[in-house]
Amino acid sequence: MEILVVNPNTTASMTDKIRIAAEKVASAGTTITAVNPTTGPASIEGHYDGALAVPGLLAEIAKGEARHAAGHVIACFDDTGLDAARSLARAPVVGIGEAAFHVCSLIAGRFSVVTTLGRSIPIIEENLVKYGLATRCARVRAAEVPVLALEDAESDARRKIEAEIEAAKRDDRAEAIVLGCAGMVDLAADLSARFGLPVVDGVTAAVTLVESLARLGLRTSKHGGYASPLPKPR
Amino acid sequence: MEILVVNPNTTASMTDKIRIAAEKVASAGTTITAVNPTTGPASIEGHYDGALAVPGLLAEIAKGEARHAAGHVIACFDDTGLDAARSLARAPVVGIGEAAFHVCSLIAGRFSVVTTLGRSIPIIEENLVKYGLATRCARVRAAEVPVLALEDAESDARRKIEAEIEAAKRDDRAEAIVLGCAGMVDLAADLSARFGLPVVDGVTAAVTLVESLARLGLRTSKHGGYASPLPKPR
Amino acid sequence: MEILVVNPNTTASMTDKIRIAAEKVASAGTTITAVNPTTGPASIEGHYDGALAVPGLLAEIAKGEARHAAGHVIACFDDTGLDAARSLARAPVVGIGEAAFHVCSLIAGRFSVVTTLGRSIPIIEENLVKYGLATRCARVRAAEVPVLALEDAESDARRKIEAEIEAAKRDDRAEAIVLGCAGMVDLAADLSARFGLPVVDGVTAAVTLVESLARLGLRTSKHGGYASPLPKPR
Amino acid sequence: MEILVVNPNTTASMTDKIRIAAEKVASAGTTITAVNPTTGPASIEGHYDGALAVPGLLAEIAKGEARHAAGHVIACFDDTGLDAARSLARAPVVGIGEAAFHVCSLIAGRFSVVTTLGRSIPIIEENLVKYGLATRCARVRAAEVPVLALEDAESDARRKIEAEIEAAKRDDRAEAIVLGCAGMVDLAADLSARFGLPVVDGVTAAVTLVESLARLGLRTSKHGGYASPLPKPR
Amino acid sequence: MEILVVNPNTTASMTDKIRIAAEKVASAGTTITAVNPTTGPASIEGHYDGALAVPGLLAEIAKGEARHAAGHVIACFDDTGLDAARSLARAPVVGIGEAAFHVCSLIAGRFSVVTTLGRSIPIIEENLVKYGLATRCARVRAAEVPVLALEDAESDARRKIEAEIEAAKRDDRAEAIVLGCAGMVDLAADLSARFGLPVVDGVTAAVTLVESLARLGLRTSKHGGYASPLPKPR
Amino acid sequence: MEILVVNPNTTASMTDKIRIAAEKVASAGTTITAVNPTTGPASIEGHYDGALAVPGLLAEIAKGEARHAAGHVIACFDDTGLDAARSLARAPVVGIGEAAFHVCSLIAGRFSVVTTLGRSIPIIEENLVKYGLATRCARVRAAEVPVLALEDAESDARRKIEAEIEAAKRDDRAEAIVLGCAGMVDLAADLSARFGLPVVDGVTAAVTLVESLARLGLRTSKHGGYASPLPKPR
Repeated sequence: MEILVVNPNTTASMTDKIRIAAEKVASAGTTITAVNPTTGPASIEGHYDGALAVPGLLAEIAKGEARHAAGHVIACFDDTGLDAARSLARAPVVGIGEAAFHVCSLIAGRFSVVTTLGRSIPIIEENLVKYGLATRCARVRAAEVPVLALEDAESDARRKIEAEIEAAKRDDRAEAIVLGCAGMVDLAADLSARFGLPVVDGVTAAVTLVESLARLGLRTSKHGGYASPLPKPR
Repeated sequence: MEILVVNPNTTASMTDKIRIAAEKVASAGTTITAVNPTTGPASIEGHYDGALAVPGLLAEIAKGEARHAAGHVIACFDDTGLDAARSLARAPVVGIGEAAFHVCSLIAGRFSVVTTLGRSIPIIEENLVKYGLATRCARVRAAEVPVLALEDAESDARRKIEAEIEAAKRDDRAEAIVLGCAGMVDLAADLSARFGLPVVDGVTAAVTLVESLARLGLRTSKHGGYASPLPKPR
Repeated sequence: MEILVVNPNTTASMTDKIRIAAEKVASAGTTITAVNPTTGPASIEGHYDGALAVPGLLAEIAKGEARHAAGHVIACFDDTGLDAARSLARAPVVGIGEAAFHVCSLIAGRFSVVTTLGRSIPIIEENLVKYGLATRCARVRAAEVPVLALEDAESDARRKIEAEIEAAKRDDRAEAIVLGCAGMVDLAADLSARFGLPVVDGVTAAVTLVESLARLGLRTSKHGGYASPLPKPR
Repeated sequence: MEILVVNPNTTASMTDKIRIAAEKVASAGTTITAVNPTTGPASIEGHYDGALAVPGLLAEIAKGEARHAAGHVIACFDDTGLDAARSLARAPVVGIGEAAFHVCSLIAGRFSVVTTLGRSIPIIEENLVKYGLATRCARVRAAEVPVLALEDAESDARRKIEAEIEAAKRDDRAEAIVLGCAGMVDLAADLSARFGLPVVDGVTAAVTLVESLARLGLRTSKHGGYASPLPKPR
Repeated sequence: MEILVVNPNTTASMTDKIRIAAEKVASAGTTITAVNPTTGPASIEGHYDGALAVPGLLAEIAKGEARHAAGHVIACFDDTGLDAARSLARAPVVGIGEAAFHVCSLIAGRFSVVTTLGRSIPIIEENLVKYGLATRCARVRAAEVPVLALEDAESDARRKIEAEIEAAKRDDRAEAIVLGCAGMVDLAADLSARFGLPVVDGVTAAVTLVESLARLGLRTSKHGGYASPLPKPR
Repeated sequence: MEILVVNPNTTASMTDKIRIAAEKVASAGTTITAVNPTTGPASIEGHYDGALAVPGLLAEIAKGEARHAAGHVIACFDDTGLDAARSLARAPVVGIGEAAFHVCSLIAGRFSVVTTLGRSIPIIEENLVKYGLATRCARVRAAEVPVLALEDAESDARRKIEAEIEAAKRDDRAEAIVLGCAGMVDLAADLSARFGLPVVDGVTAAVTLVESLARLGLRTSKHGGYASPLPKPR
């Protein structure tokens, strides 16, 4: 089966990193198609970037639906455009933020999130409330690392992320950590070993969840809020 | 002062109706500029339409900011693109959904919403939770009236809306009603008289609130989630 | 139109300060009538003072109703007697606490409150829950300043309030500040400039909101919890 | 020990009924003093009556404190003036509404309340939220019986109350019933036998709880929201 | 890898049905071991049965841990003993109730649960609150079918379950259905086709989730509430 | 009347301490029967111990029911097995955790809990949510004292508990303290005197509450979640 993974920003190096991580965790019979729109913001840092990334994201989802992909992953931790994508698609659509929250809830009573910039905290907190999982999250922390610094091996991004994980373990009573950006996908295993806590990455979590949905034969409900768009001039 | 009122769909007759209502309630010194994008969905019915309407809406907000408008109103009851618009603007931005909820909370302990289509209920409910006002709302009801039927004097839209208001008064312990679509702006006074309950329309509520903010000298906070977009390719 | 502003304590100098602030923000056609009861507590610091202030407050609201005032403001941040006043009045009634919370919710995702004494924190927190806006409030802080110290130019009240605002900006992730006492009405503009955050005062917020309700033709719902008192010996 | 039971309305026949019920359930060594203010509303039906009853109630609590009563009961189901009374008193103070909710939570997972008038529903709901026990309450129902009809043996009050209990058992998944008015104190045992469910009355519940607090040596905390009133002109 | 599926009741025919369903959905390399304790209740209907089933369940989990099973599934919809099992195990443990709720949250905004007996509703509701997913659940419905009637082809169990699904679609605004008993595992596909809604079964959902956790290298956190039991006489 | 107090662990010295405290607070006509199972964990520290203690606890409750005890107390602060015991019993059953929370809610607006080990915090927090009283609890603190250290006069348990109470008073805005372990029953009075705050112990609170229920003639509801177990092989 094909799983479409859409990185909704236009930074191809991030798309590559996401593809590699997704392929590592995918089942034998699964093909990962990782894409990004060619126009739109280079990274998603806050509400404005997120809103502008959505039309490009939806166009990629539409192509995946046309190819009958078995499922779609939205590879931005803000789950940008998730509801609109679900309205458009019949196949299941999973955001990497929600994937990480759901998966983490199965191995720990309580987790903290470590994301990039403080301006993303309200977006993540709002998603947690919407998903219902806010009560499972001790705190959303920002390492104050720009998204694209994660693509730069020379930056001090990793050190800042580690400082927040340490604080979460010490101060938040966090039993596990969720990494709050697709660009952190390659750090989870190392950080887990270092801190002695499960560290959950959303990209790999989302790939296994969307595969699970496909294997269970479950598709997005078209009864209610995710009903297919009505015909009209757009 | 100038108040910019953006109807985020492309239906000019609805923009006209909104302008007329806004002008009626505006203060002496206020100029209402009512606009709509020229491309995008003809009406906003669900998540997909909403997502596609946002870039056009943001372009209008940007023009208003450039003209130093004193404030902006987003004239779709889903408050489509509100957070992105607040990130972009320094002037205050008020959505007609939130405006109606806040105003109604000042005159009634508990209200019900009557909107157009069932697919919009989850969007409105999610907004209510996000604003904090879900506990003030008894129920969101859909009259199952397409948005553009409100522009058609021959439709049975009004009869269906009245049936839901009657049910809300009888079954929801609603003390007031919020009309859940910009296209219902001309119905509020009549319905209030008929049902003996306050009936709140969001367009007029938003105009008075954004005027209030301007008069109080209050502008959108740039510290936190509504920080101005960072410079980057978009 | 006449807006009645009732300071429910008996300190006339505070009533004067409130009147001046209210008049500054009122529209051209609005007359502000600012009054206080002649008997009752000199300041409202905690539940007991609040309870004893209510009968005098209600008597002033009754006089305002008899004069057909267009709306009433209760100028104590605890919103003392608000529900009873709404039951008595047909015109809209707005408390300065709720006014500040609603207005602040339109320009910031999240705010902190700085009030006078710690004993008022539970009252304000309870109001926030009741209004639904507790989720918008990061923290209610007390500067431990007695109410009447705000009337004394020699006191260190301002310094203590500034220390709490600074802490709220640094530690609470507050995007805006609400000043939690009518006696702070003259400080908002200065503090906003100093801290680079919106700082919201309830007296002026309430005046603009009650004017908005009057202009919208909205009056307190008499269907439900605010039904007019039944005839009986009292 | 003396337990002071204050009926905050001025209807002496209700005070007598309350005294008889309280004495039946009191321990051997307990003296019940049941009083009502001589001025104030004849019954408490809604916010306005409640606010006007508080000064008289507080005067009675002050007399009880002066006599070193071991505890106080506020015998109105709205728990009128409870926070102010706790601020005034050092002995424990228990409202009959909260008493019934706490007691009922120990014998049933979920209960419904049957009160007198619909205008009291929001007051009771707000109290439930404040106490934290709203999640234990399935529904607050009004029999639409005026308070003083409970004093009239000829009224159809009992029939209407029974209809609501039946509906609560059938429709609310209620496992127990709370009677929502001090004037229903004499009905609990009969209604419990008739409907095969625990039926909890607040007056008797409050007497046993305040006795429990006294026996445990627990008094109202004076650290925080119930700190003693500060000296000032009142 | 081995996935241990424990049916915590002693009814072997139910264990067989569970095994068959689990094997159908498991990946190529996965071995399903389905067991039940030999002593304990024949079915779990309410709190008392649940409590008595736990020691036998924990003994089976201990055996699975000793065999280094890759993960464990608790195949009772009440998620009986889940926290104790997580404390005991290092491998991930997933309950079929939580599995169904998490999976359903990825394909629908809102779901209803159809379970066997009314006495199980409070248990399921409490779990939903604990997991954080109560806000995603419209209503928990009981078909009033004893658990073992599901093992009896002649019973009217299916008809009663269908009636509740129909009511959930019509009255609850449910966008999907969760089947609330392991014994319903064979009904999901048919019911989904019949009602045009996703219908989620917990057994198959849990198998795919625990496989996902194993593939992601995630194990139960031992930091906090699921710390390994301390050595002591037991 | 007989009140059965079950210590669900097997440490007889703790049972003795519990009996002495219970007898001190019981009414003249009450007989306290304090027992513990002879098999099971020596102390309850976390989910696993709790689950294994329940069958022994239920056997003791069954004996008490057979003797027609007027009520039962479960003397573990986690309220281990409370729902199962309520299903089994017709007499009222009160856990010492819930007893302390309810009683404390009557004398303070907000409290903190000081318990033994960090692994118990999630259990207590979950109970608080379930009872509805989480909003009344500022924070659950662990002194990191093993349960049986409380039985050892030489341990530093008391010093550690005092440090947490001091922190709760200073940092949590706690108005009262709940002691979170049956083994702390002898400390409450001293600690209250030392810190100038009410300090509530659950054992004595539960005895007075269960006596209150008995005196009120209230028994566990058998309609709903606590319905008597169905006949079946167990």
